[in-house]
Amino acid sequence: MKQKLYDILHSGPVSKFIYWLIIVNVLSIILESYADFKAAYGWYLYVFEVFSVVIFTIEYVIRLYTAPLEFKVNSKIKSRWKFASSGYGIIDLIAILPFYLPFLFAVDLRILRVLRLIRLLRIFKLGRHSKALRSILDVLKETRSELSISFFVAFILLLLSSTLMYYIEHEVQPESFASIGHSFWWAIATLTTVGYGDVYPVTAAGKILGGITAIIGIGFLALPTGIISSAFIEKVKETKENKSCACPNCGHEIKENN
Amino acid sequence: MKQKLYDILHSGPVSKFIYWLIIVNVLSIILESYADFKAAYGWYLYVFEVFSVVIFTIEYVIRLYTAPLEFKVNSKIKSRWKFASSGYGIIDLIAILPFYLPFLFAVDLRILRVLRLIRLLRIFKLGRHSKALRSILDVLKETRSELSISFFVAFILLLLSSTLMYYIEHEVQPESFASIGHSFWWAIATLTTVGYGDVYPVTAAGKILGGITAIIGIGFLALPTGIISSAFIEKVKETKENKSCACPNCGHEIKENN
Amino acid sequence: MKQKLYDILHSGPVSKFIYWLIIVNVLSIILESYADFKAAYGWYLYVFEVFSVVIFTIEYVIRLYTAPLEFKVNSKIKSRWKFASSGYGIIDLIAILPFYLPFLFAVDLRILRVLRLIRLLRIFKLGRHSKALRSILDVLKETRSELSISFFVAFILLLLSSTLMYYIEHEVQPESFASIGHSFWWAIATLTTVGYGDVYPVTAAGKILGGITAIIGIGFLALPTGIISSAFIEKVKETKENKSCACPNCGHEIKENN
Amino acid sequence: MKQKLYDILHSGPVSKFIYWLIIVNVLSIILESYADFKAAYGWYLYVFEVFSVVIFTIEYVIRLYTAPLEFKVNSKIKSRWKFASSGYGIIDLIAILPFYLPFLFAVDLRILRVLRLIRLLRIFKLGRHSKALRSILDVLKETRSELSISFFVAFILLLLSSTLMYYIEHEVQPESFASIGHSFWWAIATLTTVGYGDVYPVTAAGKILGGITAIIGIGFLALPTGIISSAFIEKVKETKENKSCACPNCGHEIKENN
Repeated sequence: MKQKLYDILHSGPVSKFIYWLIIVNVLSIILESYADFKAAYGWYLYVFEVFSVVIFTIEYVIRLYTAPLEFKVNSKIKSRWKFASSGYGIIDLIAILPFYLPFLFAVDLRILRVLRLIRLLRIFKLGRHSKALRSILDVLKETRSELSISFFVAFILLLLSSTLMYYIEHEVQPESFASIGHSFWWAIATLTTVGYGDVYPVTAAGKILGGITAIIGIGFLALPTGIISSAFIEKVKETKENKSCACPNCGHEIKENN
Repeated sequence: MKQKLYDILHSGPVSKFIYWLIIVNVLSIILESYADFKAAYGWYLYVFEVFSVVIFTIEYVIRLYTAPLEFKVNSKIKSRWKFASSGYGIIDLIAILPFYLPFLFAVDLRILRVLRLIRLLRIFKLGRHSKALRSILDVLKETRSELSISFFVAFILLLLSSTLMYYIEHEVQPESFASIGHSFWWAIATLTTVGYGDVYPVTAAGKILGGITAIIGIGFLALPTGIISSAFIEKVKETKENKSCACPNCGHEIKENN
Repeated sequence: MKQKLYDILHSGPVSKFIYWLIIVNVLSIILESYADFKAAYGWYLYVFEVFSVVIFTIEYVIRLYTAPLEFKVNSKIKSRWKFASSGYGIIDLIAILPFYLPFLFAVDLRILRVLRLIRLLRIFKLGRHSKALRSILDVLKETRSELSISFFVAFILLLLSSTLMYYIEHEVQPESFASIGHSFWWAIATLTTVGYGDVYPVTAAGKILGGITAIIGIGFLALPTGIISSAFIEKVKETKENKSCACPNCGHEIKENN
Repeated sequence: MKQKLYDILHSGPVSKFIYWLIIVNVLSIILESYADFKAAYGWYLYVFEVFSVVIFTIEYVIRLYTAPLEFKVNSKIKSRWKFASSGYGIIDLIAILPFYLPFLFAVDLRILRVLRLIRLLRIFKLGRHSKALRSILDVLKETRSELSISFFVAFILLLLSSTLMYYIEHEVQPESFASIGHSFWWAIATLTTVGYGDVYPVTAAGKILGGITAIIGIGFLALPTGIISSAFIEKVKETKENKSCACPNCGHEIKENN
């Protein structure tokens, strides 16, 4: 029985059905944001929401029930706990919980809005079914230490430039550079090269600092980009071709470790 | 006869003539967009258009006629169909069809404008004559799977950030963040670092989310850039120096075809 | 006695305490910039500042006193001078000096503001305790020559484009392009792709120059970014896997130190 | 005599003097652009200009006279022509010519302004003395073919997106998208991610096209950046360490050709 349920859940058609159900769920969140659409078809959206939650709840219960087949630990309760406390287990739960909460407690309307937002987390359930998302998560895991270093450096740089800019521009633009926090917004917009143009230095000193900051700082803010890109490209290369080539003449194997 | 026509079409001067005809065609589309120019020289543009279509039609007919020499299949009709249904065959047809359509049907003026736009597709005919365009198309084909992964990830990220931003900013800026679709426009402008400045968060929460999104997300949106760049650089290197490495054990040369 | 003090200063808990004290110091500078917060809790910030300076002063004195254990030179004074004139020695001193200055001289209020800013330099004291910052400083040192070349080239490019743009746009926009210096601000905003949108060419000639400048110039302004990224990625790879390669002829292991 | 002049011109102090004279010349062009400065010190700038031209003229004459020592051809006139028609020879001449022109012809004031601008070309004289500039020029020469391909592709992409955007936005924003040329300015600002914010799509269709264009196109516009960066990094690596390592055990040389 347990094995059968497990097999059904992991079979192609069921897997695909859940995959597309998640995507349509995300779509319905987008459609709901259009006031006109919600006014006209809000009821259908609600029906679909109920339908989705029922499916996801059944999925969660089956996953919990068949956890011993996935996590081979000596006790059944332990294996179920292991699933429930795993990343996907938590996402699976959080993705359905907001629906049931109003039935259990009197919930403020405001909180309800945030709860509706939590449904968006269902997109992470895709990770189980999508190779693309999994390969990206792998890259992030592998480059964790480099990324944290570069984010730390980026943070220091943002801090330095925004503090300096605050001291320079605060008096002339007390609104835009009201505090170092406000100045931080400028620093992020500049060093990521987004440059909305809502805040920028106007004094000569501020422009000089801004220019130097931009030229020097962008390189550091781009570190995460470089790290993720090169790790991802490396990963794809690796999986594409198993990088050992045997000499076809003598069979001597040559390992390339570039 | 067939062979002769084929040789003429693929000869240097004819090839170059068509190459430049395509480029002048594109130029004429640009010039046509200048109201002053069109008012003064519109007639010449039309004559040139007729001339071009005649040439391109002759080219298409010859290509269709000489298809058996290009696609070696057992039947002549099959080989012609193979050409007509190939990428270039379709482009060749679409590039001339809009001109003839008004003669066949009563066509709406609005649709005529779109048809005129289709002429721009003639630029893809360059692919046959330009090594540059072909090498780029090769790179795109080779990196198809990586690109689709990274576009998928980029899409998920854009979706997440635009949905969150919609919930945060919608109340304060009901115009700019009217729906998740509108919010998506903000997300694209931010994560590609274009940052026009027509839409940006104004609340503290929105700025914090915007800042975090920018710092984390840009790396992922830059993935396609990194993939295309590195694949293109690799490709050029490859063609430059034939990457053969000698086995250090027996001296036998091994060809790498990555 | 000297050894004991040295050991205490370099022990885990003391090291960590100083590390966090620096971070809280930076935090207090940020909080101070919020006018409301300063009005309400300014006194606590001052007390914390006094406390920090006392700790940092004690740290500096101990480091000066125990310098002979760190810098093995024949005379004690020489070793202390060596510490005092080292990068960290200077930062340690500058980070506390501004606090004492008003007690020694009558200091202008304006200068006091700048002095308060100097406290921010304390963040560089982190370099001693943070592996992340140290690895970045190493990368900067290693790529010094490449970086200086690329900054020089970037400067030339900025100069050329801003001078040309000044001659083209000055007459039409005498405010935005008042001098080559003003034009430089445009050039930086454009070639770093920040593009605030406060200054941009409006004449046809200016737009053509701006477009060509952007397409050609961005590649050069991005050189520092590329250099830092690739050096950092290389460095991380190096430390991860000790890059030793065996000679395929005799099996002897060779260490590469690139 | 000829040899002596040649040696003097290429000696360290003279070389350095010319190097700095060029830099001060560029500085004077910048200073001249400040109306206040020019009003106050215009006379000194003129004197310096005369001084510079005299020096550069003497330099040019000596270089022309000593050309036979540099370019070993059978006839003296031929070697001098070789210098005069070389890149640096032309720059050297153009950099001084504008000064003499008003003495020879009656020159329009407008043209005089352009002639003054030509002085900026003196900066390229630095190429002879600056290793940095030379290494960049080498990189550009080496990657010429890749760069021209990527610029061609970038141009096609800019053309396609600007034409499409023109057809979509022209009716709603007849000012900003007055012609495909105007639309091109939008396309450059978007695909280089500068994004000034002076022109952007406002219709839904325009925003969808703009978004797709941005996500797809940026990768291609970034190709030159990637090519220049990677070639420059490669070049620096090459010159740093001669990439063949001998096994210290048996002397067997191992060639790395990654």
